[in-house]
Amino acid sequence: MHIKAAILAIGNEILSGHTVDTNSVWISQQLNKLGIEVVTRMAVGDDAQAIRKAIQIGEENASILILTGGLGPTADDITKKVLADYFNAQLVCHAEVLAHIQGIFQKRNLPMLERNTQQAEVPDNCTVLFNKMGTAPGMWFSYDQKILVSLPGVPHEMKYLMAHQVLPKIQQTLTDHHIIFRSVVTAGQGESFVAERIADIEDSLPPYIRLAYTVHYRVLTLRLTGFGKDKEQLIKETEHYQSALAARLADIVIAEEEIPLAELVGNYLQIAEMKLGLAESCTGGYIAHLMTQVQGSSVNFKGSAVCYQTSIKHDVLGISQEILDNNDVVSEIVAKEMATAAARKFRADFGLGITGYIDQVPSESAVPPGTVWIAIAHGNEVITKKLLLSYDRVTNIGVAAQEALIFLLKKLRNS
Amino acid sequence: MHIKAAILAIGNEILSGHTVDTNSVWISQQLNKLGIEVVTRMAVGDDAQAIRKAIQIGEENASILILTGGLGPTADDITKKVLADYFNAQLVCHAEVLAHIQGIFQKRNLPMLERNTQQAEVPDNCTVLFNKMGTAPGMWFSYDQKILVSLPGVPHEMKYLMAHQVLPKIQQTLTDHHIIFRSVVTAGQGESFVAERIADIEDSLPPYIRLAYTVHYRVLTLRLTGFGKDKEQLIKETEHYQSALAARLADIVIAEEEIPLAELVGNYLQIAEMKLGLAESCTGGYIAHLMTQVQGSSVNFKGSAVCYQTSIKHDVLGISQEILDNNDVVSEIVAKEMATAAARKFRADFGLGITGYIDQVPSESAVPPGTVWIAIAHGNEVITKKLLLSYDRVTNIGVAAQEALIFLLKKLRNS
Repeated sequence: MHIKAAILAIGNEILSGHTVDTNSVWISQQLNKLGIEVVTRMAVGDDAQAIRKAIQIGEENASILILTGGLGPTADDITKKVLADYFNAQLVCHAEVLAHIQGIFQKRNLPMLERNTQQAEVPDNCTVLFNKMGTAPGMWFSYDQKILVSLPGVPHEMKYLMAHQVLPKIQQTLTDHHIIFRSVVTAGQGESFVAERIADIEDSLPPYIRLAYTVHYRVLTLRLTGFGKDKEQLIKETEHYQSALAARLADIVIAEEEIPLAELVGNYLQIAEMKLGLAESCTGGYIAHLMTQVQGSSVNFKGSAVCYQTSIKHDVLGISQEILDNNDVVSEIVAKEMATAAARKFRADFGLGITGYIDQVPSESAVPPGTVWIAIAHGNEVITKKLLLSYDRVTNIGVAAQEALIFLLKKLRNS
Repeated sequence: MHIKAAILAIGNEILSGHTVDTNSVWISQQLNKLGIEVVTRMAVGDDAQAIRKAIQIGEENASILILTGGLGPTADDITKKVLADYFNAQLVCHAEVLAHIQGIFQKRNLPMLERNTQQAEVPDNCTVLFNKMGTAPGMWFSYDQKILVSLPGVPHEMKYLMAHQVLPKIQQTLTDHHIIFRSVVTAGQGESFVAERIADIEDSLPPYIRLAYTVHYRVLTLRLTGFGKDKEQLIKETEHYQSALAARLADIVIAEEEIPLAELVGNYLQIAEMKLGLAESCTGGYIAHLMTQVQGSSVNFKGSAVCYQTSIKHDVLGISQEILDNNDVVSEIVAKEMATAAARKFRADFGLGITGYIDQVPSESAVPPGTVWIAIAHGNEVITKKLLLSYDRVTNIGVAAQEALIFLLKKLRNS
């Protein structure tokens, strides 16, 4: 039997769409790693009745409830009062938490306010999860075979408490429940066709291994999820099906693990002891950002020249004025020049250039909107690829950057 | 009385945390604009019982239910079958949808599969929402004073159907229900202190205008939400409180609307007819990416030199080797040189340079980890700011970019 969890995000800003609830995503990932299945996620406003109702729904569906948000010092934060009320508990001042908050204010040389003192109050039936990263303590309630945990909504505080207190405490209560994920990542073929190619493998899956398809722009991921008690056996079986899928789809597989494309590119560069330089026009620094989000990327990533105006392609990259004058700035030859200049300027083994019209095309150009040229220079060779994108601006930037990384990844896998 | 809506995202990939549910965020924003309050958001897996249960919870709490996901051509997509079953309806082939799907496959010169034909089947009690952007039709169910809408999970298809079909149809059923949002955006003071400074204004708010605080790194946003029938009167009242808050907090206000910082910077640059060039080290192109996500940014943004390795600061920006040899690469003087070089290289009125140790510090440096120097060059003046960050890598990059934009925004507001 699976252990089931429910996640409840509290806050008007989440419901109104002013804030994206990334906390629940992260918590889901962490619980999955412990073999706990998240069966429902909910978001409600800072409203006592709505919070109570959501807790009841969570209790009906799961044995572990994780709440985030509503623990701040301002009047709209009511989670703690609702919980005290729900459990018929008294709010009492927690001395250690109070001392910690006083310490924070002393250190910052700020006066302590009544509302800050109140942050040290907790329902008398909870175990305090001491929050080194902020002023709001986490709270752990055990009752009727259920666990309810209330955490602050500030992401780095929530993550700290989950990692150092909640997950270890949950782990103590678990025996043998495991979830295993294994993936095959593909690019270049649509969902229906891939499904058709692997239909017999999908049909042969045992009931405790599920297959799901997820599409992110041009990348289609096939994810196997196995549930079971014998971890080693489960890994073996899930990997058996992973290998079968990867073999069948060998022509479109780009990875057998779900890590960011930029990290895959970085790994291949590192193995080959090669370095990358970029010249970005239409992606405006986004590829550089994706590359540098990866820890340790300075080893293989040298930099990017973000040339958002045509004159800069001459001034910074040194592309000849003649080429720029005689060609559309969105053309194969300009992309090639950018790639070559990127390799040269950054003294890199691979240079990648990308130029395109992401939304609007200037009146003097005959190039269709959404046209993007990507070029990769390596040694004396330059390869190119053309895209024609038709989404909104932000999506087009995302797809163009993704296509560039896929193009580079395929080149690196074949080198 | 408010009209209430519930949003239900369907898909194992959402529950497992492999996909971030941005659809629900966007739908919330759109419904809010129509004056509809989203009272609950839920996410469940591709599981018939869980979907039915979530629909029932939605019906108990709201009169409008929006479902996304589970309409694809693969075996894990079951939403349509669950809905047919829920409404005791038959699945019937919809001729227009079938012709549309056939057209897509013909155009791409691909054979049509049985699973694609099945995408044209819909429950016989629904109104089909024709999906020009893809193969899965949307479905609209009216029953017992309730509206249930089922949409594909692919974001651009969902958005197309919402904008062109769902929202106009909902609007027809509405009379006078309005929600008005007004905001005051601040930087430089903590939540508790701001709350204390405006306590009397907060206490004087009428019950139909709520105040919420949201923190994103160093930016604290105060958002007023007014509910009412008389739109003009409601705007007037909400703006009265907005002005009172802005006047009280004048020293820390950076904006009176919630638009991205990069867009605010762009607007100030455009008014002043000035241009910006960047030299980014530790932010790795992220500031350039934020600037270029804004439509029309090529007017005032010239580019960025992402110099991820020290040697590139000399090779690309032309900073003298002597300065680089005699100073830590994370120092005030190198930041100043980067800002000046960015203004010069990109022929820009404002040059911004940023250099820092985002996570690891090389052994030869005595600078504490998390140290970041920001410099802005304008004319003959260069101003600088130092940060000391202590979060994880990705957060540190985000905070550093945000602080740089705030620093630039304050400079532009005062120029």
